Amino acid sequence: MTRSPRAVARNVRAGGIDPGARGDVAREDQPWAWDESRWRGCVERVRAGRSLKPQAWPGGAEVAVALSFDSDHETIPLRNSETHPGRLSQGEYGARVAVPRILRLLDHHRVPASFFVPAVSALLHPGEIGACVAAGHEIALHGWIHEWNTTLDPDTERDLLMRSIDVIERLSGSRPVGIRTPSWDFSDHTLNLIRELHLTYDSSLIADDEPYELLADGAPTGIVEIPVEWIRDDAPYLTMDRYTGTRPYTPPRELLRIWLDEFEQAHREHGLFQLTLHHHVIGHRSRIIVLEQLLEHISSISGVFFARHDEVAAYLAGLDPGATRRGSDRSGSETAAS
Amino acid sequence: MTRSPRAVARNVRAGGIDPGARGDVAREDQPWAWDESRWRGCVERVRAGRSLKPQAWPGGAEVAVALSFDSDHETIPLRNSETHPGRLSQGEYGARVAVPRILRLLDHHRVPASFFVPAVSALLHPGEIGACVAAGHEIALHGWIHEWNTTLDPDTERDLLMRSIDVIERLSGSRPVGIRTPSWDFSDHTLNLIRELHLTYDSSLIADDEPYELLADGAPTGIVEIPVEWIRDDAPYLTMDRYTGTRPYTPPRELLRIWLDEFEQAHREHGLFQLTLHHHVIGHRSRIIVLEQLLEHISSISGVFFARHDEVAAYLAGLDPGATRRGSDRSGSETAAS
Amino acid sequence: MTRSPRAVARNVRAGGIDPGARGDVAREDQPWAWDESRWRGCVERVRAGRSLKPQAWPGGAEVAVALSFDSDHETIPLRNSETHPGRLSQGEYGARVAVPRILRLLDHHRVPASFFVPAVSALLHPGEIGACVAAGHEIALHGWIHEWNTTLDPDTERDLLMRSIDVIERLSGSRPVGIRTPSWDFSDHTLNLIRELHLTYDSSLIADDEPYELLADGAPTGIVEIPVEWIRDDAPYLTMDRYTGTRPYTPPRELLRIWLDEFEQAHREHGLFQLTLHHHVIGHRSRIIVLEQLLEHISSISGVFFARHDEVAAYLAGLDPGATRRGSDRSGSETAAS
Amino acid sequence: MTRSPRAVARNVRAGGIDPGARGDVAREDQPWAWDESRWRGCVERVRAGRSLKPQAWPGGAEVAVALSFDSDHETIPLRNSETHPGRLSQGEYGARVAVPRILRLLDHHRVPASFFVPAVSALLHPGEIGACVAAGHEIALHGWIHEWNTTLDPDTERDLLMRSIDVIERLSGSRPVGIRTPSWDFSDHTLNLIRELHLTYDSSLIADDEPYELLADGAPTGIVEIPVEWIRDDAPYLTMDRYTGTRPYTPPRELLRIWLDEFEQAHREHGLFQLTLHHHVIGHRSRIIVLEQLLEHISSISGVFFARHDEVAAYLAGLDPGATRRGSDRSGSETAAS
Repeated sequence: MTRSPRAVARNVRAGGIDPGARGDVAREDQPWAWDESRWRGCVERVRAGRSLKPQAWPGGAEVAVALSFDSDHETIPLRNSETHPGRLSQGEYGARVAVPRILRLLDHHRVPASFFVPAVSALLHPGEIGACVAAGHEIALHGWIHEWNTTLDPDTERDLLMRSIDVIERLSGSRPVGIRTPSWDFSDHTLNLIRELHLTYDSSLIADDEPYELLADGAPTGIVEIPVEWIRDDAPYLTMDRYTGTRPYTPPRELLRIWLDEFEQAHREHGLFQLTLHHHVIGHRSRIIVLEQLLEHISSISGVFFARHDEVAAYLAGLDPGATRRGSDRSGSETAAS
Repeated sequence: MTRSPRAVARNVRAGGIDPGARGDVAREDQPWAWDESRWRGCVERVRAGRSLKPQAWPGGAEVAVALSFDSDHETIPLRNSETHPGRLSQGEYGARVAVPRILRLLDHHRVPASFFVPAVSALLHPGEIGACVAAGHEIALHGWIHEWNTTLDPDTERDLLMRSIDVIERLSGSRPVGIRTPSWDFSDHTLNLIRELHLTYDSSLIADDEPYELLADGAPTGIVEIPVEWIRDDAPYLTMDRYTGTRPYTPPRELLRIWLDEFEQAHREHGLFQLTLHHHVIGHRSRIIVLEQLLEHISSISGVFFARHDEVAAYLAGLDPGATRRGSDRSGSETAAS
Repeated sequence: MTRSPRAVARNVRAGGIDPGARGDVAREDQPWAWDESRWRGCVERVRAGRSLKPQAWPGGAEVAVALSFDSDHETIPLRNSETHPGRLSQGEYGARVAVPRILRLLDHHRVPASFFVPAVSALLHPGEIGACVAAGHEIALHGWIHEWNTTLDPDTERDLLMRSIDVIERLSGSRPVGIRTPSWDFSDHTLNLIRELHLTYDSSLIADDEPYELLADGAPTGIVEIPVEWIRDDAPYLTMDRYTGTRPYTPPRELLRIWLDEFEQAHREHGLFQLTLHHHVIGHRSRIIVLEQLLEHISSISGVFFARHDEVAAYLAGLDPGATRRGSDRSGSETAAS
Repeated sequence: MTRSPRAVARNVRAGGIDPGARGDVAREDQPWAWDESRWRGCVERVRAGRSLKPQAWPGGAEVAVALSFDSDHETIPLRNSETHPGRLSQGEYGARVAVPRILRLLDHHRVPASFFVPAVSALLHPGEIGACVAAGHEIALHGWIHEWNTTLDPDTERDLLMRSIDVIERLSGSRPVGIRTPSWDFSDHTLNLIRELHLTYDSSLIADDEPYELLADGAPTGIVEIPVEWIRDDAPYLTMDRYTGTRPYTPPRELLRIWLDEFEQAHREHGLFQLTLHHHVIGHRSRIIVLEQLLEHISSISGVFFARHDEVAAYLAGLDPGATRRGSDRSGSETAAS
């Protein structure tokens, strides 16, 4: 029912202008020729269910802050078969320089965080896992070698995920309960695997500012989604990749303003502020400043619930449905719409 | 007479450097080999006619403000056959979080707006249409599934447009009178269809700051064009698409300055300030601020005519030609030039 | 000796990483296998000769300011075979709205400028040519339909250039003396054609801040180069092209700072400040501000020589070689280097 | 073991989404199917060893500053077979205008620097080499014609490197001791060649802020790495290439803030601040300002060790291992990890 990711990528690069004109796409495969069951089926396969925004955060906090770091290190160039020393050293910086710098900063503010670690990254840097665990941080899943899930058949996706769970459990000392799909590339099969392998939360989708329960084909799953967003990710603004047009055009200090705006609005709404960072991106001298100043600002405020992603998920999963705010907050058009 | 959009896209990506050198382009098809009737015919097919900038706005207002929202939601990834959950959740945010937030803001300032809604988007979120209508906003056309018109044959374009009119009429309770082509991809056949289906205005072209009458091969059509511009659109600055180089490099607060500059100059010229926004782009916590501050500024000024696009079009279409400013304002080179 | 522009474009898009690996490039065609005569021949074909920076500007002015506008209008989409109404209307804005606005601004400051006009653009907007001439501006060459010279054989390039001279002479009333190659795509044959057709200056190359004499294979040609630069061009910062990654990411008011920095340094050096603008880029409400403020600043300073490009070229061509500054200013490494 | 750079570039442009789906990639060649020895072998081929950050800089300085200029001039377009005059003139600006301007600025502040010069660039501008040497600057290696090392077989890489050493030695009067691979494209063979040709340092990798010793398959080599970073390079922010999406979107004055942040943090850490500049990028009137203001700031501080890269390398190579800071500074996760 779904065209291959390769075809999609080709289309998108072409400005998405191909489908109707391409000889190798059958006429009924053009999205405007799809019948309602097809496009509705795509949309409903995995969708946001009830909001899990709580009436109150633990300790009466007025806002929750969940920081996360994707510890990709060398796995992104490896995943791309870019195995020459030059490209790999960009990831090496993350493990060698940025992780210790970030751990010191988190320790200084006594802030817990979640580290999403590809298994290969963990195997290359086992001491790092130990240091994170010793400091009280969560180690969660982030694929085997930062693979693209949507290019895999379900068996390969399951096999890589199971092996990743084993590696992370062995190195961190506890079984991971949460997953962030590499490149947020959540496939048509990912939700089934999350349920099959008894994980409690995902953090790869972007349908809300606040946590929500995932629906599978319309049915509640009990899985908590802690949503991410490119806006609250350092990579879109600051990544440098010589082979593509990706450049660090946004001045880092502008990010501070964007993230403060996100935080302050979350605070006003008594909601969640979630951030996704990459060691080899944010960990540099001129960029760690952004995280330093953000944490200084947030730490100066009282009533902040700093929490690991697994703690947020466990708190929300344990709440009575009446203790979440769906009724008051989403009473607009969506009640009727879904 | 026109080459396929696919070939165009390929050319453009190649820096436009291909045409003369490509073996598959006949020599007489190189644009520099075209005769005058060919390039002149392309230019005159659809062109800006008399300016519809009025001598005065209703109530003696000194400036008109027409806000619009393209309610694309999941239709852009669907149109691209990007049907995996990760990509679709970006559009889902628009419907689930951004629309209610935007409706509250518009209500707070008592500002009417126009919502251009692809039919599939409306079918996926029927409650949203009801909420918009109840709040006094316009629902207008924006394609079936955000298709590229220039890739379609005229019969398919007509069929999708007619089905879209039916869906929007059924869900909104009234027949739409205006259209914005998806991706502003106004084809060689679009103007004929607009006339055939008795729409009163289009809002997809960018030949002026002020509304104008569309000409078809030099002849007036009576169709009002309410022009858009990428400058007054949130997407070019803030879109994130992992598969291409499109990144949100512009800090949102810089947009406020750009749009205030556009508004203030429109005010000085006693003209129209038109804005095109996308729920999944502007509706985020750190971005809605831009719209909030813009509306606060504009609302603090007296003599502003806030209007839906259909109201602007109806007002201008009903004016006596002498009540528009073409004479005074376009008396420069263009009088002789056209 | 030179590979086709298409192959170059393909290489560059591939990160330039292809040449050695491509099966269709003979081994001796890899640039690192070229012998010295080959790479030296490429470099020396057209090169900067003696500096024409004068000891003094007319009237004892301390800085020269040469503004130029490339009046491309619909020719860029036409050149790319992008003939649908949507894309063409972007160029139409330039002719319809921006040119009158810019002419009013130039008139307000009594500043002369040079308009580089593709012949097809002039034929589509003959009244515009008349208005520019009446206001005292220069009309100069900018190709037939904004073609890529480096894709043409020499006979086609000559033919298009000759026809362009005829059109511009007929519509403007005088024979053009200067040329700016479309897209600054100066081919291996362009300099020969400039000499053959007795033009006096070119404004397409970027080897200096100050005017210089062009050398052909090491020999002086008498042709004046008035250099351009992407830094002093509005298009790189502000162009929007939906089909590529080109976006208006730079806030317009940042350009003011860049151009003021360029001007002020030119002032300190008693040199030339040259600017290349496009009507459909800079002519919008939120962007014309940049030009307004720039002209206000420059106009507030005494000792500025505002001049058309042809006036600059004529002044410099008429100077005695001793009245230029090569001796004092370029006495560094280049004396020995060339 | 490694796929060709061409295939990598194609993958990366496609969003890296190809590997699993491509028919021409054998299943066992998908990175997620690699066994541990394969991905570990890639990572360990060339890796960062002990930190060479010294306990103290010469003269008790609190920070070291190493400026470098890559004197590419015409070699980048030549390397890409872009041999038309327009493109070449962009590099010509570097040699003609920017180098003298930069030499004057360095002289004004009495700051030494390292110039990494492709051999073809040196042969095209021999006087420039002389001027740099006379001013006390280092001339170091930067390839033959800015070739991509990872596209070459080892013999071609060696041959080009040996010829480059000969040219630089002949023109500069002394044998170069350091190398920066063109485009930082450090191949699988580069480290072996560095050792074979008795160079003392490389400056192409980015695994640390501070210098370190290179390991080859886990074994110390004695080669000093003086790391670079795209953050401390002018090209990513300011390059303009018409054929790709590369644009100078970052306002130059924002770079000053980024580089001051990098410097100030280096100062606080008593470490190294290294910068990579390109004449044709930074040497323009509106950009040299950034370097001027940066040098004015740094020069106003006491306790700064300004040094050429060869001087930094010689100082660090001569230190007793106990005089470097690995123990204190890298005692976190990496001790256990590597």
